[in-house]
Order: sequence, then C-alpha cells, then structure tokens
Amino acid sequence: MLGNLVVQKFGGTSVGSLDRIEKVAKRVASTLRAGKKVVVVSSAMAGETDSLIDLAKGIMEFPPEREMDMLLATGEQKAISLLAMAITKRGYPAISLCGWQVPIVTDRVHTKARIERIGIQRIRNLLEEGYVPVVAGFQGITDEWEITTLGRGGSDTTAVALASALAADCEIYTDVTGVFTADPRIVPSARKLEMISYEEMLELSSLGAKVMQIRSVEFAAKHGVRIHVRSSFEEEEGTWIVPEEEVMEKVVVRGITLDTKESRITVVRVPDRPGIAAKLFKPLGEAHIVVDMIVQNVSHDGYTDMSFTVSRNDAPKAEEIVRKTAKVIGAKEVIRDDRVAKVSIVGLGMRSSYGTAAKMFEILSKNGINIMAISTSEIRISCLIDEKYGELAVRELHEAFIEEGEEIKVENHGEGKGKEGS
Amino acid sequence: MLGNLVVQKFGGTSVGSLDRIEKVAKRVASTLRAGKKVVVVSSAMAGETDSLIDLAKGIMEFPPEREMDMLLATGEQKAISLLAMAITKRGYPAISLCGWQVPIVTDRVHTKARIERIGIQRIRNLLEEGYVPVVAGFQGITDEWEITTLGRGGSDTTAVALASALAADCEIYTDVTGVFTADPRIVPSARKLEMISYEEMLELSSLGAKVMQIRSVEFAAKHGVRIHVRSSFEEEEGTWIVPEEEVMEKVVVRGITLDTKESRITVVRVPDRPGIAAKLFKPLGEAHIVVDMIVQNVSHDGYTDMSFTVSRNDAPKAEEIVRKTAKVIGAKEVIRDDRVAKVSIVGLGMRSSYGTAAKMFEILSKNGINIMAISTSEIRISCLIDEKYGELAVRELHEAFIEEGEEIKVENHGEGKGKEGS
Repeated sequence: MLGNLVVQKFGGTSVGSLDRIEKVAKRVASTLRAGKKVVVVSSAMAGETDSLIDLAKGIMEFPPEREMDMLLATGEQKAISLLAMAITKRGYPAISLCGWQVPIVTDRVHTKARIERIGIQRIRNLLEEGYVPVVAGFQGITDEWEITTLGRGGSDTTAVALASALAADCEIYTDVTGVFTADPRIVPSARKLEMISYEEMLELSSLGAKVMQIRSVEFAAKHGVRIHVRSSFEEEEGTWIVPEEEVMEKVVVRGITLDTKESRITVVRVPDRPGIAAKLFKPLGEAHIVVDMIVQNVSHDGYTDMSFTVSRNDAPKAEEIVRKTAKVIGAKEVIRDDRVAKVSIVGLGMRSSYGTAAKMFEILSKNGINIMAISTSEIRISCLIDEKYGELAVRELHEAFIEEGEEIKVENHGEGKGKEGS
Repeated sequence: MLGNLVVQKFGGTSVGSLDRIEKVAKRVASTLRAGKKVVVVSSAMAGETDSLIDLAKGIMEFPPEREMDMLLATGEQKAISLLAMAITKRGYPAISLCGWQVPIVTDRVHTKARIERIGIQRIRNLLEEGYVPVVAGFQGITDEWEITTLGRGGSDTTAVALASALAADCEIYTDVTGVFTADPRIVPSARKLEMISYEEMLELSSLGAKVMQIRSVEFAAKHGVRIHVRSSFEEEEGTWIVPEEEVMEKVVVRGITLDTKESRITVVRVPDRPGIAAKLFKPLGEAHIVVDMIVQNVSHDGYTDMSFTVSRNDAPKAEEIVRKTAKVIGAKEVIRDDRVAKVSIVGLGMRSSYGTAAKMFEILSKNGINIMAISTSEIRISCLIDEKYGELAVRELHEAFIEEGEEIKVENHGEGKGKEGS
C-alpha cells in the first residue's frame, strides 16, 4: 500500500517566500502526477527562525528553553499551512500536521531533543484517503505534551526519521545541487558526487560541508534510509547518500574539505609529568569547550610543548582558562593562533589502501606547506596548516587525489535498500 | 485553593510590541505581588493575524478553513511564549499553553468554532506548583486533534470560558478604559459606567460599541462570569459586566449608541397581497443578507411602500436582488439610501418604566429629526434617522436621558457571583 512512497523535505530557502512555496507545491504536484505518494516535510521560511530568536533575545538573553521551543515551533507551523494551501490549490488536497499531531515523540531535552518514536497511523490514514500530509520539521512532543525542537537543521532528522518509519526513500531539497568532491568556490573543477556512503558523508558534514545535519545522517545510517540530496531550484539529479555496499564507485578519496573555524592554542615548556594533560584539559571540558586535534612534542629535559585546537568561537575563553592552568602547572607561556586551517581528505577506500597519508603529506610539503598537527579516522586524514595555504592545499589535493585518475574504481552491484550497512 | 484567582486577558494592542509585552508582564507581576493567582490569556500581537491572512490570500482567495486555523493559531502561540518569558524574567515562572495543551475542546467548525469543554487539571496543577499559566486565546482543539479558532475576538471567549471553568473573575484588558454612556468622541460629557448588566452590554455590543466580542458576553451571561473591562495602559478601574441583580444603580437608559453602517432600501408602490413580503425577503436570506429594521406603510388603493435596512456592505447586492423581485411583483420602483443612521437607547429600566419611547420620539422631533423606522427590544429602542442628524441625536438623547438626572436610582445589594442571572 505504501510502495512508491517518498518523503520530500524542503529547507528554509526553498520555502522562503510565497513564490518559492508555489514552486515547491508545483514540484510536489509533479511527483504526484508521476504516480508516487508523497509526504512533505518543511522547515520554517528562511529568516523566520532567526527573527523569532531575535524577539526572544529582546526580552531576555537566556529565555527558558521550554518557551523557546514554543516560540520557534510557530515557524514551521506557518510554513506547512501555507504549503498545504499551495498544494491543495494544484488539485491535490493536502493536510498540514504539527509535530504533536503526527505525533513525533521526543525526549524532554528542550531545544535539542531526540526523536524517540513516530506514530505513523495518522499519516498512513491520510495517504490512504488520498491526502498529501505536510509535516512540520524540527519539532516534536514529549510524553507530557510539551513542544520540543530538534536543534538547528532538525528538519532533516524529521524527514529521515519519517522515511525510516514509513519505509520510504527520502529526498532532501536544498539550495545546492548535491554533495561535491570539494567546495566549487575553491575548486572550480570539483564535481558533484552521484553517490556517497553515510560514513563519508558524516566525515564531510562534521568537517564543514554543511549540506545536512550530522544527526540526520547518523539516523539514516543506523536505519538504512536512502537519502537523495538535490536542489529545489534545478531539475537535475543530486547526490544519493546510501549504505556503503550500494556505493558503486569505490575510491580512495571521495572529497576534500577545508575548515577555517578552528584556532590553535600552544602551551610552551610544560613540565612533562603524569597528569599534566588532565590538568590542562579538565577545566576546558567543564567549560563545555570541545578540544579537537591534540599534539604533544617529544620531551626535552623534562619539558614538552602541547598544542590543541578548539572552535574559533571558543578560542578566547579557552585561552583564558589555559593561561590560568599554565600558571598553576608552571608552563612558560601560552600562544593562541587564529590563523590556522584544517584540510582533510575523506574516502572509504582509505581503509584498504596504503600510502594515502604519505602521499597527502608529500603534496603539502611539495607546495611548501608546513603541517602543524595531524588527526585521522579510519576513512579520513586531517592536517592543520597555516590558514593562508588553505585553499591552495585543497586545490592541490583535489588535483592529485580526485582529478588525476587516482580513484580505484571497483564496480559494486548494490541492490537497493535491502542491503543495509552493518 | 483557587480562591483569589483572576483570569487576565490582553488584546492584540496590549501585546503589540516587545515593549508592550513587558508592560503586560509588569501588570501581571503586580497582581501576583498583591497576593492573587493569575491565569493569563493573550491574543496575537496586533497586526499579526492580518498579516497571516494576507499570506494565505496570496496563495488562494478561499484557503481551506482547516489550514487557515493552523496558520492563524501561530499568532497567539508566538505571543504567549514571549509573554511567558517576560513574566518569568520578573521572577514569576510562567508556562505558556496552546489551546490543545490546556485543552480547550471545541466543535469541528473551523474558523468559528465553539468551545465545548475545558480541561482545567493542567492549569490547576501549574497554579499549585506556583507557575503562571499563559494561555493562547482564540484557539482550541477538536476531539480529533485538529486545531480550531473561535473567530475574530475569540480570545475574549477563551478568557470568559476559562474564568467560568476555574470559578474566577475575568479581567479584559483593552485599549479603552471601559464602557461609556456614549461614544466620548461624539458626547464629550459621556461617562464611564462602573457596572453594566450582560443584557445591556449585549445590546450595546451588537449596536456597535465594539468593546467585547458578543459571543463572549453571551457566554459570561450564561455562566454568570463577572467581567472587568479595563485599560492595559491606565491603572484606573474599568467597567464591570455583571448579572442584572448585581448592578447597583438601576437606570432607565444606560447608554446611547449610534450605528452608521446600515443602508435603507425602499420598495415603492408594492401591490399589497399576501405573500408579497415573503417574495421580497426570501431571496435576500438565500444570499445570506441579514435584514434589520422593516417598515410597511398602511395600504392605499391596494398598494403599499416597504422599507428595510441591511448592512451597508450588503446594500449594493441587496438592491440588485430586490430590483429583480420588484419587477416580478410589479412594484413601481426601488430606492436605496446609504445616508441613514440608527440611534438607540439601551437600559434595563425600560422594562419597568413607561413613556420612554414617547420621550425619545419627542426629543428627536423637537430637534427637527424625522424618524424613518423604529425597532425595539425589551431593553432597547432604536430609531432610523437621516445620517446627518446622527451625532446631534446622540448628544440630545444623552443630555435628556443620562445627564439630566432622569435615572431611577434603586439601590440593589447584589451579593457577588452567587446570585447569577437566570
């Protein structure tokens, strides 16, 4: 009965004006005409959420989070009712549903709730009666009838969770045409990927390729939901985010990313005693500052240098905290450097190929780029470099790893969603 | 436990900006400091509902009413969350509640639903825990979990219904300081009434003294809820709307109103046969046009003239319909007059006093004002006159009936809400 069902999610830019809402309705109508059933998920109109936040901040700097959720949830409610009207006008009766009407049940953590379960009976009934359900993204309800929101980008998670519950595919409509091998503004020859695995997408998302909320990709990976990321404004196919076995083309490096939103803090001449690292990082953790890359030099004469990176927003606070600790533990000085960049290569093929890291270091070195720190995961290598070389590094790495036919092309005849990742 | 409880309702103008929301919060806080418990009801911020309607009309002229309710309900939700923040900031933790969270259960008539029942357990619990419940006016939920709205001015009804369910008094904060004996812009000596009965208020409301939604006054009358209408911007006491027995000062005429929003249509030389009136008025009813005052002259030679009034908005359409009928029934001509006004005197004392109508006619005649039509209720007399004499008539009637000590002052020791009207 629900075969041929697709969840179509539209972001804030896609529904940013009445004109754009009409275009979204037109696209939904054309999917329906093609014989599919559609469940629509919508974000708030672009700018709406920010202007609601501004209103709240006009009253108090830290409003109660429960009331923030009440306030913010109006944004999506407004968008879905307008969208339902526009779809209805095209001859396809649509019914908008708030999170609590579905219901999308979450935990009680206001402003960043997690979905616990979704009741799909009402949506099933509407589909059977021939209606197009238009669901508010981003919002849910607790078992105590309190409105919650899922955090920024939460509409993606709503869409993926609904697709999972309804065993449907998921289309994420956004303002880019898909996921690229690198930022096309930096690398003009960057190309759109046809497919990418969840794991690769997660590494790219967390590294600054802000196409989708990380949590929604994690959710999709966990439940094997196939996601099609594509443009609201163009007809062309976008990028499919799928289980690893379904990715047809296996390559060592799928994409290159650049993150210029970190700062490096170096503690010079730290007495190298057990427990020093803990003393340094514990107060940062207590201040909710996330530490990313950590480098500790080889010890000389009982002293060492320690460097680490934090988000640039947190850097001044982190520096202040570390200066206090440095005094206590007898370090010589603390240096903060905001002009750093993290360049990363990501690809499933790294797992089974050798020499990738060495090649990356060689390319950077050949271009006179010094590496300040290195971090890796199973499918990623990141190097911290001087910010001024950031774009150059991305271009050189893109050329060497992606353009010069370095891909190991292994045909893999994945067979759709039956073959989920582990 | 709920003794000393008051429902305070704030209209759109009262919460029309962050600044005004802060003022409302301040007033709520001062009521709380005085030892009362408060349940707040709020309308949407002024202009919000209209701008939402404009958005919907931008998509289609007649949007599905269910979706209109979804859309409009966001207005109050936004206002209550901001108001809850502002009250919380003043040290009184507040919790905003949408209609469905209370719940305020209505019938299924979208855009003009009627309240069927109110669950008060959650509000009781919040009050006991020391919270200030801030309830969205205007909106409810059906037993099928659909959002409904109560029609324009519906927040008054929400407040009165909540006050009734909670056995509390009801304060309606608005942009006037109370109910006056006449429009102060017409009669500078008009005075604010301390008290007025439901019946008198209903006659005044329906005659154009637009202080409160008629349905909310009917609801209050039915359930004996005492309403205090007062200004959001001034500290002074307003007007109490109470059961008849509680009105201390019995007067023949409580107030004078002027309605300049009707038109008169006259059908000249109608053959005076049975069934002619039905032929004339049936098509108007079918076109949903409400006919107000009707006058039929004495018949001469088997012919008569018939006049009636309709809302001025409906007048062109009514004229067109009547012209068709006039041709069929052989009337001589149809005349429409938009320059008419209806002046009315309203007062409970009319029931037991004689000569009031005669005195009204005499005052109008003495001022050279011709009466075109008369209609009455038990506590009201209305005369249709030439529009240009409208304000003069109000001033003269106010002077004669209200200023010149014509009131019959009968002390009536009403004893609070225990003594409800029938």
